[in-house]
Amino acid sequence: MIDPDFLEKHSLFGGISRDKLEIIIPLLEEVEFRAGEVIISEGEHGENLYLIYEGEVEIIKSARRDGREFQEKIAVLGPGETFGEMELIDPEPRIATVRARENTLLLSLSNADLYQIYRDEQETFTLLIMNISRIICRRLREMDARMAQALCRLEPA
Amino acid sequence: MIDPDFLEKHSLFGGISRDKLEIIIPLLEEVEFRAGEVIISEGEHGENLYLIYEGEVEIIKSARRDGREFQEKIAVLGPGETFGEMELIDPEPRIATVRARENTLLLSLSNADLYQIYRDEQETFTLLIMNISRIICRRLREMDARMAQALCRLEPA
Repeated sequence: MIDPDFLEKHSLFGGISRDKLEIIIPLLEEVEFRAGEVIISEGEHGENLYLIYEGEVEIIKSARRDGREFQEKIAVLGPGETFGEMELIDPEPRIATVRARENTLLLSLSNADLYQIYRDEQETFTLLIMNISRIICRRLREMDARMAQALCRLEPA
Repeated sequence: MIDPDFLEKHSLFGGISRDKLEIIIPLLEEVEFRAGEVIISEGEHGENLYLIYEGEVEIIKSARRDGREFQEKIAVLGPGETFGEMELIDPEPRIATVRARENTLLLSLSNADLYQIYRDEQETFTLLIMNISRIICRRLREMDARMAQALCRLEPA
């Protein structure tokens, strides 16, 4: 049973009224993963965004050095945070692998559901897109700061 | 005189019909900067997004190492690319400094203009927000890849 109070508190649903949330809730699918399981894999095609309801996940991205492939953990996300939203905005293969760090309960919203919201509730759709954009913005801000920091460490003193 | 063909080709106005573009064009303000001039400064408040019409700019972010501040160039952008759009989606101080690398002509769209589009043309507004989100997504994808690469180089072999 999805608690609308939980949804109301989190960035993905910011500004969306309780009656609009009641329309969205039946579209959300609950999916469970056990600690260590891969939820999405870098490079695969995906059409769902996920909101973490319980648990914690890590975002892992591959990188190459000297011809060898490394797996770099670039972030850890917990309850109320989302992942997979980029592919709903800009359909491209998954940019990273996401793995459950503990037993994790997710709420999933598909591209098709989002399209249904677009058709039936344009204002709610616009709010959702604004919220998703804001989440992506915050992530980019954080990544820009970390990147500047990393460049700074990579430079000769 | 702003050429609608130029706008039509670029990500910010993707999917927006010619007649809707004609409504947006009078809202765009042309602003010129000379090579070396600072267009926006990290930390300041800003309410405009900019589309590069002619010229090239660099994105500079400060970082600290051993208590000293460094300026790191994290990107270079050219015609058809945008900057400053994050603050329209998520009002926060400017995340980086942007400086003209050559004489540069920009088209600027303010928060107030965007709000006017929201009021008068909700569908066009939604398309613009989707386009802005897509631009931010692409930048985040690129930054994620560079970050993984940098982490990889920062690790002991």
